[in-house]
Amino acid sequence: MSSNAACIFCKIIKGEIPSFKLFESERVLAFMDIQPLARGHALVIPKTHAAKLLDVPDNELEECMPVAKRIAKAIGANDYNILQNNGRLAHQEVDHVHFHVIPKPDAKQGLQIGWPQQKLEMDELKSIFEELKAKM
Amino acid sequence: MSSNAACIFCKIIKGEIPSFKLFESERVLAFMDIQPLARGHALVIPKTHAAKLLDVPDNELEECMPVAKRIAKAIGANDYNILQNNGRLAHQEVDHVHFHVIPKPDAKQGLQIGWPQQKLEMDELKSIFEELKAKM
Repeated sequence: MSSNAACIFCKIIKGEIPSFKLFESERVLAFMDIQPLARGHALVIPKTHAAKLLDVPDNELEECMPVAKRIAKAIGANDYNILQNNGRLAHQEVDHVHFHVIPKPDAKQGLQIGWPQQKLEMDELKSIFEELKAKM
Repeated sequence: MSSNAACIFCKIIKGEIPSFKLFESERVLAFMDIQPLARGHALVIPKTHAAKLLDVPDNELEECMPVAKRIAKAIGANDYNILQNNGRLAHQEVDHVHFHVIPKPDAKQGLQIGWPQQKLEMDELKSIFEELKAKM
């Protein structure tokens, strides 16, 4: 798998930077977020250095959600979010794909979500669908 | 896999409610969100009726991210978020696990994220880590 010498998460994978490792396999690593939004906030990362979801090999992606599930179970929270951000506009800060597991113990702690729903006619949705479907 | 007669997503899986299906396999289904946050907003769901991540069989979870990746590729956005919410506090609205693939074309459209980082001493983080690690 490819690595990037300047990447902080690649350094964590190699052990060049210390971390609190919750889980490790050949393909993925999970560790505590050191700037948590709530108690237990952790990250699951594929070991391949890839900036965005599109660039991660499927066999690494496959393992990420079962590991996130194990972490969520260990945390024991009733409410929690799984979040993976791609690009600065979408709030990505480290350019190595990472899935956040973020407990939501109350309204103030954890991920804050705004949901600006758009109004869309069914015809327009159908047209977007047909465009995407052709590219799948 | 188990199903829930009252669940809107189980009805979509069975074809009792129409949807714009982008992808379907034995284990997962992907379709357009009819109340999108941005153009192309889609959902990936495991076929088993499970309210939260913890309740989904691993073999269904494994397929979700590769399918989300295919959708993100079809959308062609530079910036996008993958989000899965568990529980009302965490903004879950339909009690059947679903992964949102949400393009972020600009600051106004797409997912709005607030990031209330907590200040945490390394000792405290270590203590939380040890507690979780013991449960993994």
